[in-house]
Amino acid sequence: MSTSLQKQVGQNIRRHREKLKISQEAFADSIGMHRAYYGAVERGLRNLTLRNIDRIAEGLKVSPADLFVDMTSNNRARRESS
Amino acid sequence: MSTSLQKQVGQNIRRHREKLKISQEAFADSIGMHRAYYGAVERGLRNLTLRNIDRIAEGLKVSPADLFVDMTSNNRARRESS
Repeated sequence: MSTSLQKQVGQNIRRHREKLKISQEAFADSIGMHRAYYGAVERGLRNLTLRNIDRIAEGLKVSPADLFVDMTSNNRARRESS
Repeated sequence: MSTSLQKQVGQNIRRHREKLKISQEAFADSIGMHRAYYGAVERGLRNLTLRNIDRIAEGLKVSPADLFVDMTSNNRARRESS
């Protein structure tokens, strides 16, 4: 579950970073984040905190909410079933 | 900055919990979270991780994205200006 959320957020981060046409390394440097750590974030391997989510969203010029968009619509199903 | 995101997420969590008409204590117990910690989350005092965001969202029967809705529209302004 948490792993799937980490993956979803990581994929959204990657998608927005690629839109900006900037490399992982250059982006990590621009927000003062360790390159290896940032790479693991995009691969869904890090249990990010709100502080780091905010830092990444600011760098990507999107809102934190944009990083939680569910492209697979699993969560939409969860919400609709409640 | 991160404090404002913590507050925003905490307020959204509180709003959804109140919709369920369940007390802070009962909700914290239902998701196996320490009551004092959970109280601090609603007050925007905790730098939540994705894992705990997911745990809370599941308990509230909402998607994690719902906890990042910006009721003040600050982030919408940020996005539109980019």
